Amino acid sequence: MTLKTVTLDDIEAISLGAGILGTGGGGNPYLGSLHLREIIRRHGPARVIDPFDLPDDAVVVMAGFIGAPTASIEKIEQGEELLTALRAFEAHLGRRATAVGIAEIGGANCFNPIVLAIQAGLPVVDCDAMGRAFPELPMSVFFFEAELPVTPLALVDAAGNRVVIPTTAGAQWAERLARTLATRMGGTAGLIASQVPGKDIKTYGIHYTLSLARDLGGRVLRSGEDDIPGVIADTLQGRVIMRGKIADLERRTTRGFARGALTIEGFGSRDRLFIEFQNEFLIARLNGEVVITVPDLISIVTEDTGEPISTEVLRYGMRVAVLGIPAAQGLKTPKALAVVGPRAFGYEVDFHPLPGGIIGQRPAI
Amino acid sequence: MTLKTVTLDDIEAISLGAGILGTGGGGNPYLGSLHLREIIRRHGPARVIDPFDLPDDAVVVMAGFIGAPTASIEKIEQGEELLTALRAFEAHLGRRATAVGIAEIGGANCFNPIVLAIQAGLPVVDCDAMGRAFPELPMSVFFFEAELPVTPLALVDAAGNRVVIPTTAGAQWAERLARTLATRMGGTAGLIASQVPGKDIKTYGIHYTLSLARDLGGRVLRSGEDDIPGVIADTLQGRVIMRGKIADLERRTTRGFARGALTIEGFGSRDRLFIEFQNEFLIARLNGEVVITVPDLISIVTEDTGEPISTEVLRYGMRVAVLGIPAAQGLKTPKALAVVGPRAFGYEVDFHPLPGGIIGQRPAI
Repeated sequence: MTLKTVTLDDIEAISLGAGILGTGGGGNPYLGSLHLREIIRRHGPARVIDPFDLPDDAVVVMAGFIGAPTASIEKIEQGEELLTALRAFEAHLGRRATAVGIAEIGGANCFNPIVLAIQAGLPVVDCDAMGRAFPELPMSVFFFEAELPVTPLALVDAAGNRVVIPTTAGAQWAERLARTLATRMGGTAGLIASQVPGKDIKTYGIHYTLSLARDLGGRVLRSGEDDIPGVIADTLQGRVIMRGKIADLERRTTRGFARGALTIEGFGSRDRLFIEFQNEFLIARLNGEVVITVPDLISIVTEDTGEPISTEVLRYGMRVAVLGIPAAQGLKTPKALAVVGPRAFGYEVDFHPLPGGIIGQRPAI
Repeated sequence: MTLKTVTLDDIEAISLGAGILGTGGGGNPYLGSLHLREIIRRHGPARVIDPFDLPDDAVVVMAGFIGAPTASIEKIEQGEELLTALRAFEAHLGRRATAVGIAEIGGANCFNPIVLAIQAGLPVVDCDAMGRAFPELPMSVFFFEAELPVTPLALVDAAGNRVVIPTTAGAQWAERLARTLATRMGGTAGLIASQVPGKDIKTYGIHYTLSLARDLGGRVLRSGEDDIPGVIADTLQGRVIMRGKIADLERRTTRGFARGALTIEGFGSRDRLFIEFQNEFLIARLNGEVVITVPDLISIVTEDTGEPISTEVLRYGMRVAVLGIPAAQGLKTPKALAVVGPRAFGYEVDFHPLPGGIIGQRPAI
């Protein structure tokens, strides 16, 4: 069943599901969940709209926070940055938004648009622009598939600073300027980007990912003593690549990104899985051989409870399972791979697609 | 006589005068002069409006380039950044500008607003916001005296990127965000800032500084074999503090600023003048004793021809004269000194005002 509302009862499941889809990035969903819980308590549930119920000319604004996930641990958002950004965006556009879109289902950014939707009295669309988390703004189906501009953008920080970027010399400039501003603003800022018409949401969006996050999280929560990594793999048509212990870890935060790499040693085996990340886990090599590549999802969860592990909470010695999950179809086209394939992240390897996949598809009833 | 127009015949004199008023910063006026020359050739002279001829409700936009002067040597502006920024600013405001204001008479920023005025078909006001050059946006009489906000701001770079900053949590945030953007945009960007009503131009502006630059430069150009540093001092009620050779120089460009210090050894004497700069020359100590402090102007010119020397062209061994010039009255109030006095720049000394001064006063006919 797809979601019609988001209530207090959905939050824990969405948090868990979005954390798994966050592939290590997108910010810690826990803080976002606290905020949403408070807003729902105060104002009631969020309305969710099926992407195919949108009028073709609906104005959907893509919402989320931008910045290094490591910043969000120390700095809980003030609460109205996205609403202020929406108003600045609408003032620039001269139009009001019809609905709020989720820029990135993975991580905390699943909750921020829901908070905004409640604050603005708008529905949130059951759909996102990535079907996972990604580190950069142009890594959106609405940019590389629908060929919509990333601008205009509106950024607002917790101090109340507002910036509008009407247009840039290409999407990479939008990314660079917004990232630079977010870093300067204290590490993170609320962002409203690129109005997407309803018809493009229907044609290009990664559909039903909010419902997918809730269903995935719900299955994990109900799994009890089962093999939880196996349940996750089963739900997403993925597979468990490795169970083992984090044996090596290096990280650094540069230019607003959390970068690094880790090595996992298999339990009772000599297998070693080497994973590199730039906000998200991007490429995994098993004993030197590439086994999973972006845009397919690499998710690391605790081996026993299936709790997703984001890059900022990785620790030496953790017992984990690593999942490979096939990305949404919209991320695998040649146009998409030019932006979100391994080479776009600087890895000299081709995309090795995992077979199958259900992200972006209408759930069976 | 005050200017009614700026023609090709005025450019050399304004360039020289504005360079002297630039106190080492504000960008090299030479490049700006080439651009203005081209625009006047194509479109005719600029119209100049007397500040007291503005209606009280006139919308005057303050225009200039922001960024490190060292960047502008390698990167000549594309030519329409300020016009594009003006359009973005007006679109945000929902009003058209009545006239163009000069944010900073010192350095290249004397010419950029004149170029914009011609491009936009508007008059340029014979007035500026500093009566010299300063390194930061809030160092404007319209901010610290008139208490107008520094925002909204519009920034446009040579690549065509546009950014609008509707509001910030205080003037220092506006400075920080605009500076960060300019640095990211390649070192320099065209900036339209804070609309100033005509009545505030009349009450708070540093008046007739465009005419002053032209008169000052004109006197130098006509001086022939005279003692040119003496002519400059005489014109501005300043004094020649030192004639000598640059004996030591250190510099660095950090966070968009050209910082450094130099020492000048007097000709045939043991006197040593130590001058520190942050884009502009800010404090001078003669044999260890403070003799000139910001906001009073420290100008360094070649000893023979009176050519102003900006911080980026300082070289070991140059033969120079150093002038101390009393700042405009509007920079010397307690409110002004809190923003542009020596302590605002991190020097633990009081302002030592030079006596007299004519900057900002109506020229005698």
